[in-house]
Amino acid sequence: MTDRFSFHLLGTDGGARRGEIRLPRGAIRTPAFMPVGTAGTVKAMYPDQVRALGADIILGNTYHLMLRPGAERVARLGGLHVFANWPHPILTDSGGFQVMSLAQLRKLDETGVTFQSHVDGSRHVLTPERSVEIQLLLDSDIIMQLDECVRLPAEEAEVARAMRLSLRWAERSKRAFGERPDRAIFGIVQGGDVAHLRIESARELAAMDFPGYSVGGLAVGEPQAVMLAMLETTNPVLPADKPRYLMGVGTPDDIIESVARGIDMFDCVMPTRAGRHGLAYTRFGKINLKNARHAEDSRPLDEASDCPAARDYSRAYLHHLFKTDEMLGAMLLSWNNLAYYQALMAGIRAAIDERRFEDFRRTTKEGWERGDLPAAA
Amino acid sequence: MTDRFSFHLLGTDGGARRGEIRLPRGAIRTPAFMPVGTAGTVKAMYPDQVRALGADIILGNTYHLMLRPGAERVARLGGLHVFANWPHPILTDSGGFQVMSLAQLRKLDETGVTFQSHVDGSRHVLTPERSVEIQLLLDSDIIMQLDECVRLPAEEAEVARAMRLSLRWAERSKRAFGERPDRAIFGIVQGGDVAHLRIESARELAAMDFPGYSVGGLAVGEPQAVMLAMLETTNPVLPADKPRYLMGVGTPDDIIESVARGIDMFDCVMPTRAGRHGLAYTRFGKINLKNARHAEDSRPLDEASDCPAARDYSRAYLHHLFKTDEMLGAMLLSWNNLAYYQALMAGIRAAIDERRFEDFRRTTKEGWERGDLPAAA
Repeated sequence: MTDRFSFHLLGTDGGARRGEIRLPRGAIRTPAFMPVGTAGTVKAMYPDQVRALGADIILGNTYHLMLRPGAERVARLGGLHVFANWPHPILTDSGGFQVMSLAQLRKLDETGVTFQSHVDGSRHVLTPERSVEIQLLLDSDIIMQLDECVRLPAEEAEVARAMRLSLRWAERSKRAFGERPDRAIFGIVQGGDVAHLRIESARELAAMDFPGYSVGGLAVGEPQAVMLAMLETTNPVLPADKPRYLMGVGTPDDIIESVARGIDMFDCVMPTRAGRHGLAYTRFGKINLKNARHAEDSRPLDEASDCPAARDYSRAYLHHLFKTDEMLGAMLLSWNNLAYYQALMAGIRAAIDERRFEDFRRTTKEGWERGDLPAAA
Repeated sequence: MTDRFSFHLLGTDGGARRGEIRLPRGAIRTPAFMPVGTAGTVKAMYPDQVRALGADIILGNTYHLMLRPGAERVARLGGLHVFANWPHPILTDSGGFQVMSLAQLRKLDETGVTFQSHVDGSRHVLTPERSVEIQLLLDSDIIMQLDECVRLPAEEAEVARAMRLSLRWAERSKRAFGERPDRAIFGIVQGGDVAHLRIESARELAAMDFPGYSVGGLAVGEPQAVMLAMLETTNPVLPADKPRYLMGVGTPDDIIESVARGIDMFDCVMPTRAGRHGLAYTRFGKINLKNARHAEDSRPLDEASDCPAARDYSRAYLHHLFKTDEMLGAMLLSWNNLAYYQALMAGIRAAIDERRFEDFRRTTKEGWERGDLPAAA
């Protein structure tokens, strides 16, 4: 037990880092994958299932929660942990990313961003100060500064403008956050796909001495090679003794490659969103259960998995559940996919501990490349 | 363990009966509530949750399963128990009821019923013989004869015609079923709201010596008093040493009143369907979680319940899940409602065992009548 936020780098293997974040609500083993609980629920999952799969922390979306049920309401109900029945650490984003992707009639200036709710058209203002206030009302353990994320490709001047605005918002966010040793605020590196802008952003943020650093504005349309090049550019500039969180990433391959380049934390809707659409992640790559070839396949997704969803239901049954739009299909594949992601993270952590990360990376990719085998005739 | 179907009447208390059905796949404690697994899944529930709540048997719908994934396909995949990951007993209906309510371009004659699938318009024929064949392909433990169910109100002549057709189909169904001591076929009493037709139907079926009897064609639009009067008319005609199943019923009050009149088995979509629509069953009546009055109510549905869905989540959170169309809302309320139904059945069984059923009936109704209390101001 601890009463303060801290990060402990436990070991490295090449560029990969093994660590632990400590918080009053619990420890986070890194590299960590954070399931996304958009509106206070990891979709189609009970919270104790999410926990049992090995999640030490989940993510909540400030944009969604500020609209419904509202930050002040969550605070009156005891905070997001009580509300969502998740007593373990929670990280919240700033809301900025989803304002840009979901809200209507956005107007952004130096002060912040004004927008209309995509739910009911109501008008809202998000400033760096208000974003921090909302995240504190939610009782978030790890808070993000408000930033502006530019979709790629974009003009360098536009990327530079948004990055420098994000730096000014970083300072305002940090000031609004104040001294709160029991939790943390992360600064967010921006700079698009422009190496010198990424370096400038990381250097300026490091000078502000944040408890942790996020890398934002990646996996927004650029090729994986560009994303990884930006990590190689950025990470050496960030202090080694602070955690690094790559926002919104990604595929299993994105994760393993980003760990190799020194990233400690990830979040992504992919496992649950793909699960709701019939796509299963396995050791042998992705399987689309909607495909007719599974209609009479009595094999489970992975008989060697610890997860009942992967082990105890036939592909034929899963196919049937998606053909008939039965909720259990989404429930089982979300479960399977989060189980796969967390097993991948556990494998990564064990491999770094034992200094065999390169071997783990190679054999894991060999599994994906082997692909799914057809059912015996 | 047993290799044959049998029914054991363990005791009575007034008109209420306590019994046990034994089957190779397990015993069914009666009075029993059978959750409905329409298309091979009790909606929004994992099968092991359904089991843990105390369900000894679930129901599968022949109409849905014959269309998707198809009876022959289920058979090739090892039967419905293997397919749906439910190794315990399964009862199937005949398909007739849903042909009448869901299918298009129905044509019914002495032979059977021809219809078009509501899913893809494909043409199908359901005869008494084919219905039994399908149910055996599904590997059902308790099979229903094909019958014709008339919606009420209806002309007596129409009710009589359908009842007598159902009797002729009962004979054909029983012949098609043959000698299968490891499972059972039930004849179905019809006759609408006409007492002498109900008596004729029950007497004729009893003469055919079925292993069990269903009461069909009730809870199809008539007042509860009419339904209960029909049970009082019918049940004395049915052999006391065979189980009696009231099809598609019903509310908790319907169940307790029907148990009082000698019914042993029930099925109903109500707990799961209501759960998907935000309606919770509790000891203190129904609660509509969509109602705005729950938005800041931090109380759980029932802090004294054994069910995590009733105990560990606030009404405010459940309200939020339904406002935001989050799947977890349907998952939690389906769970809560099935837990409530199974707890009601367990309470009924214990009360009959201890010959205090009348007392149980009264105190249970007092709880419903007390109603839900508002949150403290």
